[in-house]
Amino acid sequence: MTTFRFESRPSLLSMATVAGPDEAKGPLGEKFDQVVPDLWVGQKSWEQAEQELLARAGQTLLVKENLTAADVDLMVGGDLLDQLVTTHFASRTLDIPTFGMFSACATLTASLAVAAMAVDAGYGQKVLVTVASHHHAAERQYRYPVELGIQKPATAQWTATGAAAFLIGKGGPVVVREATPGRVVDYGVKDPFDMGGAMAPAARDTLLRHLQDTGRTVKDYDAIFTGDLAAVGSTLFRDLLKEEGVQVEGIHHDCGLILYDRSSQKAVQAGGSGAACSGLVTAAHIIPGLLSGEWRRVLLLATGALHSPTTYRQGESIPCIAHGVVLERAEAP
Amino acid sequence: MTTFRFESRPSLLSMATVAGPDEAKGPLGEKFDQVVPDLWVGQKSWEQAEQELLARAGQTLLVKENLTAADVDLMVGGDLLDQLVTTHFASRTLDIPTFGMFSACATLTASLAVAAMAVDAGYGQKVLVTVASHHHAAERQYRYPVELGIQKPATAQWTATGAAAFLIGKGGPVVVREATPGRVVDYGVKDPFDMGGAMAPAARDTLLRHLQDTGRTVKDYDAIFTGDLAAVGSTLFRDLLKEEGVQVEGIHHDCGLILYDRSSQKAVQAGGSGAACSGLVTAAHIIPGLLSGEWRRVLLLATGALHSPTTYRQGESIPCIAHGVVLERAEAP
Repeated sequence: MTTFRFESRPSLLSMATVAGPDEAKGPLGEKFDQVVPDLWVGQKSWEQAEQELLARAGQTLLVKENLTAADVDLMVGGDLLDQLVTTHFASRTLDIPTFGMFSACATLTASLAVAAMAVDAGYGQKVLVTVASHHHAAERQYRYPVELGIQKPATAQWTATGAAAFLIGKGGPVVVREATPGRVVDYGVKDPFDMGGAMAPAARDTLLRHLQDTGRTVKDYDAIFTGDLAAVGSTLFRDLLKEEGVQVEGIHHDCGLILYDRSSQKAVQAGGSGAACSGLVTAAHIIPGLLSGEWRRVLLLATGALHSPTTYRQGESIPCIAHGVVLERAEAP
Repeated sequence: MTTFRFESRPSLLSMATVAGPDEAKGPLGEKFDQVVPDLWVGQKSWEQAEQELLARAGQTLLVKENLTAADVDLMVGGDLLDQLVTTHFASRTLDIPTFGMFSACATLTASLAVAAMAVDAGYGQKVLVTVASHHHAAERQYRYPVELGIQKPATAQWTATGAAAFLIGKGGPVVVREATPGRVVDYGVKDPFDMGGAMAPAARDTLLRHLQDTGRTVKDYDAIFTGDLAAVGSTLFRDLLKEEGVQVEGIHHDCGLILYDRSSQKAVQAGGSGAACSGLVTAAHIIPGLLSGEWRRVLLLATGALHSPTTYRQGESIPCIAHGVVLERAEAP
């Protein structure tokens, strides 16, 4: 039994997003709090630009809620860059005690789970959850500098540029009901241009364990969102589940397929990815759908690929993970 | 108020350590569960060697307690390598749901805090906390490959080779009483060969906030252990506290000065560091001291430097962090 059920009903009090120019052109473009016109964000390096995105998301949330840093007990979050420099450098500005988490693109749900635990264990404190990623910073670190113009196969995904911040506490309209931490699953995929395919088995593993732990079926969810399996991984995820007799067609959506319009934004290839991908979609699409009554209970299964450039060059496969979090409208039973 | 007090008394059920050859030659050499004769640990790369250390520490703990992976609900931990590959690759073998944490050498106390929260929120589950580091893997990633023979200044510290695993649950003899997450503190130090000096202000910040939150003075602790400030950072830490009117002479110890015998192990220069440093010292020295009755209440303040090789090359300073955890003998009031 590895699913944590949060009895004290930790919930979402507020959120804020800052999105890059490509994300602004996608279907959710109108729904972000702030959009930056270019990838520099007024900074001198991609790394500083990513920090600026995150600092702005955090500050936007504090301003929205009329809070100062001293009102927030803890910041939990992560990013894709080595040593989580985005999170930690931005945290200097935000000045909130910080736990850095790394599950690659699954960092959002790991952080939401820890925030919910902190609120559950700490009796009502306010915890800020943050994620960020930056297309150019991630490409240079993980693959090639974008300036080289290396062609990518159709299975490749587009690392989202943006940052999202969520404030978890007590009494908000969307409850973090349960969390199912993921196991590391490795199917031997070695291609860093096929993250969706590598991650799909991890998403399956966490979904099946979650259903077993909770005694539910997929029909008990109005929607199941994977983090960023994108086109290739989403198909594989549904096929893998079919083999287990679990049918998610119509219920399953993928954040990597929601953030961009693949028909007009062809550069994103198979779809979006990056720690900010599920962050932006959760804030601009999933939470609004829960608030509007479109859904009452959703399962968010952010997915992450856990290789490093070093392990890739050493010929290692790509271990993956998916952490699940159940979000419910506060009045749901 | 950023100190979490764990009312359900999460506690240490078991622990296990695997140490490298230099650590075995230090004062705690006899107290590790397992010692490896060389830095390869039977593997082909330093990265694989580090994974093997961690997998062995986890397996040793499970065997000691006659547990299988299925008995453990969650693994929380981290290491120094990019994308936490040590933790995540080892987790494939251990097969326990995993939250990767990164606070550099302060990862132990961040992970202990999250484990305590998980037990507190989850009503008695078993959570495995792990940390690992490897001298050669860390040096190559952060500074230079050891094989280059680059000379280091006397302020440099020695990244420990080893891994430590701790099982947190209910009913054990040492209680995780409180946790004070650290803020990111940056005094503008840019020298990656002076980590202790960079980290000392972060340790001061967390200690002062912890005392304010708990209403205690340093005299309420039998011992205060910093993670790995080593010789330079420890002196600075005590001097910085003196400026605040806080006297920790005689109470303050540093894991980086306990792990090695600097008089005979001159290569360690100012002392030990690395995520495994505070892990090995906690398991082989601090917990045994609590169990034997030498101390009743200790504050463990692991310290971490949060730069990356990229930010260093970009001329950025080194932000640092220290997370505090209070450990008490179970019968303490």
